[in-house]
Amino acid sequence: METISATSPADFHCHLRQPPMSSLVTPHVLKGGFRLAYIMPNTKPPITTTAQAVEYKQLLQKLEPNVEFLMTLYLSPDLTPEEVKKAKAAGIVGVKSYPRGVTTGSEGGIESYEVYYPVFQAMEEAGLVLNLHGEVPSDASKNICVLNAEIAFLPHLIKLHTRFPKLKIVLEHATTRQAVEAVKSLGDTVGCTITAHHLAMTADDWAGNSWHFCKPVAKFPDDRQALQDVIREGHPRFFLGSDSAPHPPTSKSTAMPSSPCAAGVYTSPVLLPLVAHLLESFGALDKLEAFVSTNGRKFYAREVAHGTAPVKLERSPIRVEEEWKMGEEAVVPFWAGKQLNWSIAQ
Amino acid sequence: METISATSPADFHCHLRQPPMSSLVTPHVLKGGFRLAYIMPNTKPPITTTAQAVEYKQLLQKLEPNVEFLMTLYLSPDLTPEEVKKAKAAGIVGVKSYPRGVTTGSEGGIESYEVYYPVFQAMEEAGLVLNLHGEVPSDASKNICVLNAEIAFLPHLIKLHTRFPKLKIVLEHATTRQAVEAVKSLGDTVGCTITAHHLAMTADDWAGNSWHFCKPVAKFPDDRQALQDVIREGHPRFFLGSDSAPHPPTSKSTAMPSSPCAAGVYTSPVLLPLVAHLLESFGALDKLEAFVSTNGRKFYAREVAHGTAPVKLERSPIRVEEEWKMGEEAVVPFWAGKQLNWSIAQ
Repeated sequence: METISATSPADFHCHLRQPPMSSLVTPHVLKGGFRLAYIMPNTKPPITTTAQAVEYKQLLQKLEPNVEFLMTLYLSPDLTPEEVKKAKAAGIVGVKSYPRGVTTGSEGGIESYEVYYPVFQAMEEAGLVLNLHGEVPSDASKNICVLNAEIAFLPHLIKLHTRFPKLKIVLEHATTRQAVEAVKSLGDTVGCTITAHHLAMTADDWAGNSWHFCKPVAKFPDDRQALQDVIREGHPRFFLGSDSAPHPPTSKSTAMPSSPCAAGVYTSPVLLPLVAHLLESFGALDKLEAFVSTNGRKFYAREVAHGTAPVKLERSPIRVEEEWKMGEEAVVPFWAGKQLNWSIAQ
Repeated sequence: METISATSPADFHCHLRQPPMSSLVTPHVLKGGFRLAYIMPNTKPPITTTAQAVEYKQLLQKLEPNVEFLMTLYLSPDLTPEEVKKAKAAGIVGVKSYPRGVTTGSEGGIESYEVYYPVFQAMEEAGLVLNLHGEVPSDASKNICVLNAEIAFLPHLIKLHTRFPKLKIVLEHATTRQAVEAVKSLGDTVGCTITAHHLAMTADDWAGNSWHFCKPVAKFPDDRQALQDVIREGHPRFFLGSDSAPHPPTSKSTAMPSSPCAAGVYTSPVLLPLVAHLLESFGALDKLEAFVSTNGRKFYAREVAHGTAPVKLERSPIRVEEEWKMGEEAVVPFWAGKQLNWSIAQ
């Protein structure tokens, strides 16, 4: 049977929430073929201190001992240059910035970057990574809505990189050609994650389907093309960050008009087969290992030890589960019920 | 109490479906303050012949004798120049064109206009109006999705108007600045309808909320601004067509990911108060009568008789009903539960 493999796949953008949802979704990282997960801090309450992040990591490690969890802090006024040093000493890898109000758990997000320059200075010195949710808040007076919120953010990315050229910055979940081109134009300290679902969707997919609604929203076919192209060309600073985001079905459906749905698409339990399926669909299957492991690990200086056994996929179709459940918790995966051409070899 | 009035309001784009839904929604035209409704032919099956349209009109007139119903035919290969003459003689006013697959009931829609030139010729001679759903089908290879489907349609509008300068054409439910500018640039035989909900929404409103999903989708804040501006400036070729589209709640909610929702927003039962509320919000309340009556009636040569009693609104807040029901049928109106500043004086 035809097979393909990737050494120690790493998901550089993952949401594992807090208990009891964590208990359901944390083992899905391994199930989906991944050995490393870079954990977002927008839990409720958010992870704003080193102590919280260390405790959170212990919880996750207990739930799934066979995955390496890299931890982040939520950028907020609680984060001081002193805390940055402490975080670095405790093994925390990055700091995530959410502009206020643009997605799940961003109510405490930032409104201006200048006030954080001393923190970024400390991060640059300590070697912590700045992870950017690259959207500005909607503002009708500036003609900004979900459709152009990412493009309007790019000047902030460029400004931060110019001011802190040695600070490692990751533009998370890029969705537009402009974002891809901006990242390409910047220096080696700027990386970019791409999700699996943004390789699959355009605006047509979430128009009228709240289950496909995520932030940033999927854009034009040409934007999707740019994401696919940059992977196919093997650009080393673009790598997988799934942004896999579990929400209970009641938060994703829109049973009543007064309850618009939560932003997020859940891909963890089928992530590697899904990525292989998608890469093959646009002729980039030969870039699978680079996209899901090598590129991201190199950017984060988390290269795998020589001789690490690869995760093997075989061309044996699987059907995506309709739902995952544990006790009261449930989550519906992206492409539920659809067939993928690849599955993890047991 | 402060009042405002409009003489014999006319809704130049309305969906009244077939029984049993018709029984619920047809009386809502009058309830919403309107005396004339221009009826879309995308019923199931569609209204493709004069005989069907005449029968449909009788049904609607029986359900609500105090509204004047203007009838249209669905553009399809069934429509011949002979049928156009027959339609004119029977009092049918227009022909609606749906590009294939772009909205509710458009499965039988057109793929190319050239084959209909003999029909358009006959319509121009007979004085029938061509009503255009102005979107092209999504096509990833041409970078077309719901976001730019209207802009990509505009060359068709311009070409049709150039070829048939005396044919009255209405670009229905415009949603973009480009559409407004295209219509303004064309001759007096080209009109344009604007819905109430597109005066209220941007893409942010339907992102994650299937109840606000309609075709064409609401676009950028600047597009909404262009729609508001052209009403405020009192341009005579822009007028109300609500595109009020009743769907059962099960078709609008997205209980499961496999069932994306129907396109359409329902405004009929509160239409005049809603339009007054919205026009006031952007400083165009003095254009209420022009927008809901004078402009459209003039374009369609349906001016009201001198001395017709106006419909009066008073500044007395009402709350939009959560749901309308009749037997098994139900429909949830736009802005359900919200307050409007104006109500119809009894």
